[in-house]
Parts: sequence; structure tokens; C-alpha cells
Amino acid sequence: MSFYPPHRTLMGPGPSDVYPQVSLALARPTIGHLDPEFIRLMDEIKQLLQYAFRTDNELTLPISAPGSAGMEACFVNLIEPNDTVIVCQNGVFGGRMKENVERIGATAIMVEDSWGTAIDLDKVQAAAKQHPNAKAIAFVHAETSTGVQSDAKAICHIARQYGMLSIVDTVTGLAGIPVDVDAWGADAVYSGTQKCLSCVPGLSPVTFSDHAREVISTRKTPVQSWFLDMNLVMGYWGAGRQRAYHHTAPVNTLYALHESLTVLRDEGLEASWARHQLNHQALKAGLEAMGLQLLVAESDRLPQLNTVCVPDGIDEALVRQQLLKEFSIEIGAGLGQLAGKVWRIGLMGYASRESNVRSCVQALESALSKQSFQFPNGAAMLAIDEVYRQAASTS
Amino acid sequence: MSFYPPHRTLMGPGPSDVYPQVSLALARPTIGHLDPEFIRLMDEIKQLLQYAFRTDNELTLPISAPGSAGMEACFVNLIEPNDTVIVCQNGVFGGRMKENVERIGATAIMVEDSWGTAIDLDKVQAAAKQHPNAKAIAFVHAETSTGVQSDAKAICHIARQYGMLSIVDTVTGLAGIPVDVDAWGADAVYSGTQKCLSCVPGLSPVTFSDHAREVISTRKTPVQSWFLDMNLVMGYWGAGRQRAYHHTAPVNTLYALHESLTVLRDEGLEASWARHQLNHQALKAGLEAMGLQLLVAESDRLPQLNTVCVPDGIDEALVRQQLLKEFSIEIGAGLGQLAGKVWRIGLMGYASRESNVRSCVQALESALSKQSFQFPNGAAMLAIDEVYRQAASTS
Repeated sequence: MSFYPPHRTLMGPGPSDVYPQVSLALARPTIGHLDPEFIRLMDEIKQLLQYAFRTDNELTLPISAPGSAGMEACFVNLIEPNDTVIVCQNGVFGGRMKENVERIGATAIMVEDSWGTAIDLDKVQAAAKQHPNAKAIAFVHAETSTGVQSDAKAICHIARQYGMLSIVDTVTGLAGIPVDVDAWGADAVYSGTQKCLSCVPGLSPVTFSDHAREVISTRKTPVQSWFLDMNLVMGYWGAGRQRAYHHTAPVNTLYALHESLTVLRDEGLEASWARHQLNHQALKAGLEAMGLQLLVAESDRLPQLNTVCVPDGIDEALVRQQLLKEFSIEIGAGLGQLAGKVWRIGLMGYASRESNVRSCVQALESALSKQSFQFPNGAAMLAIDEVYRQAASTS
Repeated sequence: MSFYPPHRTLMGPGPSDVYPQVSLALARPTIGHLDPEFIRLMDEIKQLLQYAFRTDNELTLPISAPGSAGMEACFVNLIEPNDTVIVCQNGVFGGRMKENVERIGATAIMVEDSWGTAIDLDKVQAAAKQHPNAKAIAFVHAETSTGVQSDAKAICHIARQYGMLSIVDTVTGLAGIPVDVDAWGADAVYSGTQKCLSCVPGLSPVTFSDHAREVISTRKTPVQSWFLDMNLVMGYWGAGRQRAYHHTAPVNTLYALHESLTVLRDEGLEASWARHQLNHQALKAGLEAMGLQLLVAESDRLPQLNTVCVPDGIDEALVRQQLLKEFSIEIGAGLGQLAGKVWRIGLMGYASRESNVRSCVQALESALSKQSFQFPNGAAMLAIDEVYRQAASTS
């Protein structure tokens, strides 16, 4: 029997709500992965990704698998056995980077910060000084597990200063907050399609600097993954009409990515960042008016992923279940050491809009009331009104 | 600007024409990868894949990436550095298996057969005898580069006989010809969605025997790929309601796979094999009536992928270009050492139907006429008529 999914409002840590035009693009007729029309589409996707990442990097393309594979692509191509990598960890995904480094047979030097705070630049600097032979500094720009953003530009700068490569996870960052690959001087950056791009999950946009390309093409050992070997992937995604078959591209998902990037370019990157910021302000105002607290300090918050502290005595799983069952709204649970302690409310891409902010806050009011959580009646909506009113008056 | 692909008839080596209901399924609303409704879908997909593979293997699921990643998943999970693997090669994909083995730091013992012939069982037997410490025998059941099928049951039997694992590529086989994982006693089998399942490209169904699972869970070294580590993937796809997040599943593509497997079960595996066989017979009759020759001996042919020898003096690329431009029909070029020497005409899944057989043969007549290739006028259609007439009279 066919599967008919329920209609959800996706306000967790991703996937986010998909743009309606992206769903339509998905369903268009499949063509061959070497069809001249498909090659043209690939060229356009590359250009659109260069726009989204703010880079002129020639090696900019979507990996044919989810963000975790994008992460792995960056590590297995740049790092060789016995290399040393400085890995910053302030959440789940820094830990996954460590796993990647170690499975290559390389050594990870960990720079640890508490979950919920940004990466401490002094610690990174100190680690670089102490391990001058490290090949790369790897860090998460936008930590999906905590809702924290770190200073990507500064960390990439430290890497350059010590002659190290930088590997940047911005799976949740791209299109939601400034990502500025060339200005950062970043060497390898990966993202996902199912966050602020509001495309379906399944692809991982990546970009490599010219220096990173050179490092890849002059490796001493073969890349341990055949599927993710950029030397081979480049032959398919490279310049020119003559593309070498490497693997069968996920044709329809690439239609969807193309469409979502077109939506992004039509809106404009700056406008997209501003929209994410505005809806975050409204959500925050509503939550605070209810007496709820955000985990992350204001300066380090990701506007697209709001980590909300679960009040004492509240059954957090029950709240999520009620939101899903009664309002068909998905919000996220805490992950790793934050499991049970926070909710993660995403306002990503198409999901970052006023009606979602309001519906989610009202649904939370309903669910928390049932657990006798006290809050001033109607205050949240008034606080939200105020944010949008002010934004309208200044624009 | 949005991308509107041309409408093609996909008769190459894959992707094949997608079932219309699969396109519709793709466009359904995205839900979360941990949504209870999605968990239910995952359970159904697992059962449908067990049906398609003819297996009770608990570890049966789609890898969230194309067939090349499915191949890599089998190798990196079962093989460890310094292991030895007997790899049978009679086309491109056996060579890719060798790459996979070597990138693990293991040794590949090659058993080579000419491209266009089946794997010689005596050679496999001899290699197993000569390398009794090999951990596995890896081979391609349905070689997409040549259109050859090999005797999977017999090769898996040799592997068992010598206490070795079997790793089987049936990317092009599944649903087009008998695949019988449990009866073969195969240990690791992978396929693709974009061939005889007529789903979109992007996923790789895999199945592992209980013995293979045990080998994976008792490895001495960690799996070199975090993304493809079945120990972790199992936590997400495993039994029970409590699924551990590993990576974000390609939600919509999984809707599509579910739909295509539902179509397959509704038709029935045996009926699907018979349909592929019938349309192959018709195509073959048409092509031979035109004076064209198939590369592969009748006993070894894949009905879903017909390798046609390019006649002397014919510009094969021009023929493909004319088919694409004038008839919007895609057929495949030769790959590897068969490049320029053959065309590959796929009759896979939804593309395996009478109207496609006829359109393709007529389009070939048109293109070959332009290069002054001589053939008896009208003979091909009469030969095709005869095949379908006989089939109708015996059914």
C-alpha cells in the first residue's frame, strides 16, 4: 500500500519544511546522469552553490549523500594516516569529527568547550601553538546539537596563521547566518540540504579551496573511500562537457537542490539571514514572555536553531509528543549530554516564518499548561506582535 | 530559473524510466527522520526489500547513497586491513571491487574473465583452493558494463565450501532476473534503486546474512567509514521503536523506494522477471532481424541490459545523439574496454515494455539508415510482432 505521510510543520533540528516548489521539482521526469541537459543543470548547481557559500572555489558541488558523508568527504580527502588534526568540540558534531579523524588512522587533538558555549579562540590558538605540525583545524560553525555559532572567520585565520588547513561544518549554518567561505579563507566546508536550504535531505554541498585541491591531488596515499574520492568525483563534476562516469547521481534530488538554491538566490542571501534573525527574535520574545529560557548566550545563538531549557518538573518528551499529535508540529529533543534538558526549535529556511513562530509558541502554551506550568496569559503573543511591529516600522 | 528536464525514455544502463506513482510519492510532504510514521515506513521498506531480495536477513535496508556506496558499505564492513579477498572481474564493476579492497589495505586476488562472458566457475574454484585463507569471494552477478549474468548461486556455494564470505553486486539484477539471497547462501548483497526497481537514483539496498552481521560486530578494527558503519546504521534501522539518530535519512527518496517496491510486490517477482525476459526476446528479435548482433552468448545474457555490437563503419556516438535528439530516447555507450564497440540498451523496470521495444528499434532503424546501414525493410517489426503473438498465445 502506498505511504501517505502526515502533513507536519518541521521545527526541529532538520529536516525543515520543504519549499512547495522544491517538492514539485522533485517529481519532474528523471533524465540520465550524463544527459547534456543534466550536465547543464550540474553547472548551474555549482554556480548557485558558489553563491550560497560566497566562494569562487572551482571545487564546489553536492556530495551524493547526507551531511555525515559530506563531513567524511572533507576528512578522508584531506587527512592521511598519521596526520594530526586539531578538533574543536562543543557539541555532538565535534565528536563525530574526532571519529572521522581516528578512523583514518590519524590523531585528533581535542579542544573542548562546554556544550552551549562558543569555541574559545584562545584555546584554539594555544592548541595550534602546542601542535605546530597539525595538518588541520576542524570545527563546527553552527552546532546543531546546541544551537551555538562559533567565530568561523577567526578560527580559519588561526589555521592560516599556523599553516594548517581549516575544515568547517556549517550543515545548519548555510543560508541561515553569514557563511563567507572566501572571506574566511576556509579550506573545506560542508553543509546539508535539509536545514536552511529547505530542500529534502540526502545531499551535502561541499566546497574546497584551491589549496585544499592541491593537497588532495598530491596525497601520498589513496583516499580510503572510493565513493568520496574527490579526485574521481571531480572527473564527473569538473569543467567541460566531457564528464567521466563515477557514480549515478541522485538526479531528482539534484532537481530539488537546484530549485531551493534558486529560491535562495531570488530572496537574496542577506534577506534570508535577516528573515532568520527576525523570526528568531520573535520566537525568543514569545518564549521569554512565557518564562522560558534559552540555553545559549545571546552573542552565540543560532537564530535558526533555538535551544530552550526544559523547566524543572516538566516531562519534555510528553510536550514533544503533544505538539506532534495535537498540532502536527515537530520540535527536536536534546542530543548527547543535553538529552532531556532542552528542546531544539528550528526556524530554518521555509520554516522560518511568522505563522510558524506563533503556532509553535501557542502549541507550547497548550502543552505546558497541561503540566501546570505557570505563565502570564497572552503575554507571549503580545511580545511577538511587538517584534514584528517594530520590524515593519523600521523596514 | 527553475529547471524543466526534457521528457526522456530511459533505455540506457540506468537510471531507467521511473514509475509515475514513484514520482508522485517523491513529492509528498517531508516528515522527520525520527517521526513515528517514518519509523513505520522504514519497517515496511525493510520487509519489502526482504521480499525483493528473497531473504529473511534481519539486516536488510537501503544505504542512504547510490550503489557505489552500497558496494563500499559491503567491503568496508566485512573486510579489514591485511585480509585477502578473491575478486572476480569480467567488466568495469569487478575492477571497482578491487579498488575497494585495496583502499582498505587488504589484498585482492583477481580472477579475470573476458568482458562479455560469465565468470568461469572453475577459475573461482581454483583461486579458492589456492588461497584458502581468503576472507571473501566478491563478484558481480549482473555486470552493467557488459550485460552479462554470472551464476551467483554456484559462486556463493564455492565461498561457503571454503569457509569464505560472499559479496555480491546485483545493482542491475534485482527485480529483473532471479535474485535469491537465502537460497544462494550469500553473505552481503547490494543493489541500486535506479535500475529494475524503476525508482529514482540515490539509494542502495543491501542485505547481510546473520553470519556477516557477526563478522561485522566482532571486527578487530573499527569500520573505516563512519557514515557506512553498519554497527551504527543498525542502531537507526534496527528493530524496536527506539531508533538512535545516526544520519538524516533521505526521507523523500525513501518514499519513492517504498512506492517502487510496492509496485514490484503488486506485480510479483516472478511476473517481473517474466516481463523482463519477454521484452528482451522481442528486442533481440527486432535487432537480429535488422542484422545487428548481441555481444553476449544467449545463456549469459541479462534480459534487462542488451549489449549490441556496433556494426563496422558506424559512428556509434552519432547514433546515440540522434536517438536522444530526435526521439528523446537514451541508450548507453560502451564502458571501459567496450567503449565505442557496443551500445547498451536497457529494458529495466518500468522501461521494460512493448512500446519501448518498438520505439527503440524504429529509432535505431532511422539513425542507422542515415549512415547507410542496410537492413530488410519492416523485418524488425514483424519479428517483434511474432514474439508478442507467441507470448499471448501461450499465456
